[in-house]
Amino acid sequence: MFSIYLVAITAEAMSGALAAGRRNMDIFGVAVIAFVTALGGGTIRDVTLGRFPIGWTQNPEYVYIVISAGLLTTLIAPFVRRLKRLFLVLDAMGLVAFSLIGCSVALSMNYATVVVIMSGMITGICGGILRDILCGQVPVVFQRELYASVALTVCIMFLSLKYLGVTTDIANLVSFMAGLLLRLLAIWRSWRLPTFSIESDWK
Amino acid sequence: MFSIYLVAITAEAMSGALAAGRRNMDIFGVAVIAFVTALGGGTIRDVTLGRFPIGWTQNPEYVYIVISAGLLTTLIAPFVRRLKRLFLVLDAMGLVAFSLIGCSVALSMNYATVVVIMSGMITGICGGILRDILCGQVPVVFQRELYASVALTVCIMFLSLKYLGVTTDIANLVSFMAGLLLRLLAIWRSWRLPTFSIESDWK
Amino acid sequence: MFSIYLVAITAEAMSGALAAGRRNMDIFGVAVIAFVTALGGGTIRDVTLGRFPIGWTQNPEYVYIVISAGLLTTLIAPFVRRLKRLFLVLDAMGLVAFSLIGCSVALSMNYATVVVIMSGMITGICGGILRDILCGQVPVVFQRELYASVALTVCIMFLSLKYLGVTTDIANLVSFMAGLLLRLLAIWRSWRLPTFSIESDWK
Repeated sequence: MFSIYLVAITAEAMSGALAAGRRNMDIFGVAVIAFVTALGGGTIRDVTLGRFPIGWTQNPEYVYIVISAGLLTTLIAPFVRRLKRLFLVLDAMGLVAFSLIGCSVALSMNYATVVVIMSGMITGICGGILRDILCGQVPVVFQRELYASVALTVCIMFLSLKYLGVTTDIANLVSFMAGLLLRLLAIWRSWRLPTFSIESDWK
Repeated sequence: MFSIYLVAITAEAMSGALAAGRRNMDIFGVAVIAFVTALGGGTIRDVTLGRFPIGWTQNPEYVYIVISAGLLTTLIAPFVRRLKRLFLVLDAMGLVAFSLIGCSVALSMNYATVVVIMSGMITGICGGILRDILCGQVPVVFQRELYASVALTVCIMFLSLKYLGVTTDIANLVSFMAGLLLRLLAIWRSWRLPTFSIESDWK
Repeated sequence: MFSIYLVAITAEAMSGALAAGRRNMDIFGVAVIAFVTALGGGTIRDVTLGRFPIGWTQNPEYVYIVISAGLLTTLIAPFVRRLKRLFLVLDAMGLVAFSLIGCSVALSMNYATVVVIMSGMITGICGGILRDILCGQVPVVFQRELYASVALTVCIMFLSLKYLGVTTDIANLVSFMAGLLLRLLAIWRSWRLPTFSIESDWK
């Protein structure tokens, strides 16, 4: 799980750097957006759960990893473009791994089930939300193919398996594979949730 | 006060869902925006005051209420439109109730007076600010009819009454009625605060 | 250092008020943006470091100072315009002072070096980031002349001097002067970091 976490923060940092590049930010902005995208979800989760000190402050190497990944992305951006498919898989792994980690953290603090699920989702999607807000756009997680729904599905599956008596390792593994499959299928088939639209001329 | 709190979070969740609908979000985005609008203000207040665990994590039923209210709103949106007047009253009740709750929380933690007032205002208006940021617009509370000013007035009135020796229940009741009246009058008469405008061509 | 802190929050509050004025906010919005710009960076730092109660809640006079400064700015805006050069110097002093304070706070809590640096940068730049988000624009710190880089430089210089055995007072003083000089030079010469730009037609 730990090595998948490293893949996850790296992929998220790269997605942050790419978003910053689309906004013509300087390399410093790239580093900040990479940091926030990769570690922001976990930070919001820790604050929400009242879990201090916050994760990354105790593991400074994560800071170096995500900033390096962000800056490296500026160099290899054309290359990433060609590897877009690989990048989407990494990003999906990140989403699913973050969600499972978020569940585990809240579980270990004995929060109620709905809080555990929220914790998984916060960890999975808040980094991307912060990235989009800092880049001045409406967060894509609210509008695109199943993304947040994948986080939700993963969390519920993990908790259900645990409840059925499956060991934590197996529950993690099965949820991870199922979530990854669901996310990739959603991208491939352009699955979306029904949209709620109302005219903008009234409050 | 408790039943008014339930009305308040329901009204806030509905206002969040309507805002999400204006941005064509999927039903998942609607649920998230409803959640953030209704419980975000209290969350920011609790974090600011260092009050852990955060309120809603100890009352999971609130999460179900606000998400249900948000999703339900997608079904009854045309109906809500006709009931716009009722909705504005509910929203005003929410604003005033949130502000009073924010004051009480900070008072019970022995914070200084100005912090108590800030706490009331944070609880009252931050949910709406988060909603607007996530929907990609400048927060309306900074531009429209007396809204945040109502929160401020309610907090100051509540503290003044307490200071004059009025019991907490009476102070709550009087402030609630006065705040509700002020807000509804402001909407009805389109009262606004003076605006500060400068040309945008200089820093 | 303390009097410089007062100058810093005043300058930041004024910059917030000016930003609010460019968005035609009412005087209440001006007060909120002034407050968030001046005290938001320290608040995010305290939350990130798990340092409760948060600074300004224990020093209510800061709240009065920043709100007064914000409202006063609405009266003297044309005057500020003529004094733009003075204002930029105050703003630069604020940036550098905030960064040094952020480092000191994290140092006193025995955090790792990279966290100390992050703490300085968060304190220095997050107020401005919040201001820009609330005003609906992409944060300027990611796009303009050396701004965040100044915060970073100041933090690293301060820690290096401390590491070399220089006393805290001297380290603060030297870093402050150097940071101020660097920032003013950057404005004067329009120094920028290299920008990372990619076309917006791909994810």
